[in-house]
Amino acid sequence: MPKLSQRTAKLTGSPIRKMAPLAMKATEEGKTVYHLNIGQPDIPTPRAFMDGVRLADIDVLSYSPSRGLPKTLEALRNYYADNSLELSSTELSVTIGGSEAFTFALQATLDPGEEVIIPEPFYPNYLGNSQLAGIKVVPLTTHAENGFRLPNVREIEEVITPRTRAILFSNPGNPTGVLYTEKELARIVELALKHDLFVISDEVYREYVYEGKAISILSFPELSQHAILVDSISKRISACGARIGTIASRNKELMTTITKMAQSRLSPPTLSQLGLAAFLSDKSYKETINTMINKFHSRRDAMYKAVQGIPGVICRRPAGAFYMFAKFPQIDDSECFARWLLTDFDFDGETVMIAPGTGFYQTPGKGKDEIRLAYVLEEEKIIRAVSLLEKGLTKYKATKLLVGAAG
Amino acid sequence: MPKLSQRTAKLTGSPIRKMAPLAMKATEEGKTVYHLNIGQPDIPTPRAFMDGVRLADIDVLSYSPSRGLPKTLEALRNYYADNSLELSSTELSVTIGGSEAFTFALQATLDPGEEVIIPEPFYPNYLGNSQLAGIKVVPLTTHAENGFRLPNVREIEEVITPRTRAILFSNPGNPTGVLYTEKELARIVELALKHDLFVISDEVYREYVYEGKAISILSFPELSQHAILVDSISKRISACGARIGTIASRNKELMTTITKMAQSRLSPPTLSQLGLAAFLSDKSYKETINTMINKFHSRRDAMYKAVQGIPGVICRRPAGAFYMFAKFPQIDDSECFARWLLTDFDFDGETVMIAPGTGFYQTPGKGKDEIRLAYVLEEEKIIRAVSLLEKGLTKYKATKLLVGAAG
Repeated sequence: MPKLSQRTAKLTGSPIRKMAPLAMKATEEGKTVYHLNIGQPDIPTPRAFMDGVRLADIDVLSYSPSRGLPKTLEALRNYYADNSLELSSTELSVTIGGSEAFTFALQATLDPGEEVIIPEPFYPNYLGNSQLAGIKVVPLTTHAENGFRLPNVREIEEVITPRTRAILFSNPGNPTGVLYTEKELARIVELALKHDLFVISDEVYREYVYEGKAISILSFPELSQHAILVDSISKRISACGARIGTIASRNKELMTTITKMAQSRLSPPTLSQLGLAAFLSDKSYKETINTMINKFHSRRDAMYKAVQGIPGVICRRPAGAFYMFAKFPQIDDSECFARWLLTDFDFDGETVMIAPGTGFYQTPGKGKDEIRLAYVLEEEKIIRAVSLLEKGLTKYKATKLLVGAAG
Repeated sequence: MPKLSQRTAKLTGSPIRKMAPLAMKATEEGKTVYHLNIGQPDIPTPRAFMDGVRLADIDVLSYSPSRGLPKTLEALRNYYADNSLELSSTELSVTIGGSEAFTFALQATLDPGEEVIIPEPFYPNYLGNSQLAGIKVVPLTTHAENGFRLPNVREIEEVITPRTRAILFSNPGNPTGVLYTEKELARIVELALKHDLFVISDEVYREYVYEGKAISILSFPELSQHAILVDSISKRISACGARIGTIASRNKELMTTITKMAQSRLSPPTLSQLGLAAFLSDKSYKETINTMINKFHSRRDAMYKAVQGIPGVICRRPAGAFYMFAKFPQIDDSECFARWLLTDFDFDGETVMIAPGTGFYQTPGKGKDEIRLAYVLEEEKIIRAVSLLEKGLTKYKATKLLVGAAG
């Protein structure tokens, strides 16, 4: 039997998705499972988007241009202009979700063996896609105790080597909900210019900000040749299944390369592009987005309040995205705990599914006492789910003590 | 300014797509351009597919499982069973077009520096995606004179090295229209077993066969651990913009790895998957496909007859797909000729766009006197387009002679 490639040998798959069968089994056994584990909002996809798909006059569902349909690109250009980012149409390309956008960015800027610095905990697929491309991820550890703020310049410089080519982060942050301040971003700008590094900023949660304002990497004029924006409509308009993202940069050479990469996979899905163009052409599109943000604001407050009530928890109030990354000293192994919640725990026939913290770290051993909680459910469900989590924590600790005493 | 990666330095982009601006300019100037250059059929996407999208009861357009929606996987399983290929649901995964399917196959089986053998002329994106992944493409040249048949075992073995890990081909072939016989495929099977190589068979044109029968690589039981099927619905149901393909293999370890790769980009587009499930559940789906095939059969005949009438042409009648790859001794540089047709030539305000042969070869200098012609238009348009091509060839030759005489 022929051997598979080494590049795929380390792939762990999605630490969140791989637990899905356990949740399915629990559901089949009659348990109610509250999903705090995934970033799949429950909010209906806007009518303007769906109408844009349903009412499209399509005879032949043909390829779009590789960079996207002209009207979708134009709609996106207007969207960014509405958000104070003036982009020409060649500085922007439609991608197959944010996933393809950061994959393009990484492959265009790093060769095998070269290094990208990513503050950890980070979105796990950054690692998987880097591994496939032979790129080395160098983690820059941040901490629950100070709300996962960026380290200072000296500490960041400690992980820069002659092979470092880029810094990648999500802002607002998945899984931490951290929102980088102007001061923090100024450190990135300083280091990028000093060491000539690309800065790949994943801003898919840009609108989901409850205190302060998200600052785009493209708003720093001095970084015009270094900054790469990664974006997606998945969360913004609750259309995760559309698989539409964007990559944008003012670096012409980079965007020419991105076009070639885009041609190598022909085109992004046409139906979703039509939906997006229709949604962004709708006059009330900002209102629609704002309504969603307000909903998540209340959910954030509800979850933070509930989680704060759990004894021993260490976490700061997240300023953006729709995640909390909380530390619980009572958890010895977050992956075991997450499984246990699905397989061994229930309270009145209910349980909760969480994302174990370990899946968001590259540094071995990190995240064993941390979990990610997504506030993508209605408030009462969030409160119920966090109460189940609290009960689970107590019972898990008692079980562990029993096992410990027996062992 | 930071440097881009070396892996992207050699990317040429799509040799076909990059000529699009010239065609657009010609059209804007009032010329009618007949498109023989692309594999984008003009046939309406089946109603059952579009209704499956339009009438879907979607509240939240959510992610699908990474391997595809259960009902889409089930529909595909039934489709393959209808085509004498029994697959379990874990031997099959939905991909984002055939593009992602062969990219997954290449990355899962080859590490940077390792070699994949591809009979040339070949589909250009095989090369682009190999380059991005650091994989070396080793061409196995085939020839217009004998209809681009596979070389014999000894000739193929000459290009096998200790770094060879896989053989990749499309069958029926793009750009040649060649359909491999059982005898030719037996050579591949023999070599794959002898040298322990993966065989990646791109069968997106499987139904488009006008003489004989396409033989799937999955139909060889002795190759169960080596064979990988790459497929797409783009051409089969004239839904190129859907971006839905499949990868299938009986090698469990491979499919487990493919699942991890699939998770690293979350999911294929949901809307298109709903359309496909609806189309394949429609009782008359085979009839719909057969109607298309019959149309292309007539078009093939029309084009072959017309092209045969051009003095000097060297080509065999293509048995499958919807392309002809023809050699014209009067062309000195097919890329120049293709450009010239758009920029300098017209007859009664009309011209034709073709795909230059050079874009389908890895070996330098090959394809300069060859072009690919797609028969994806109505018969009368095909006849008109080929007549324009013939006029263009005559005028191009005369122009060249003049320039030669002047120079």
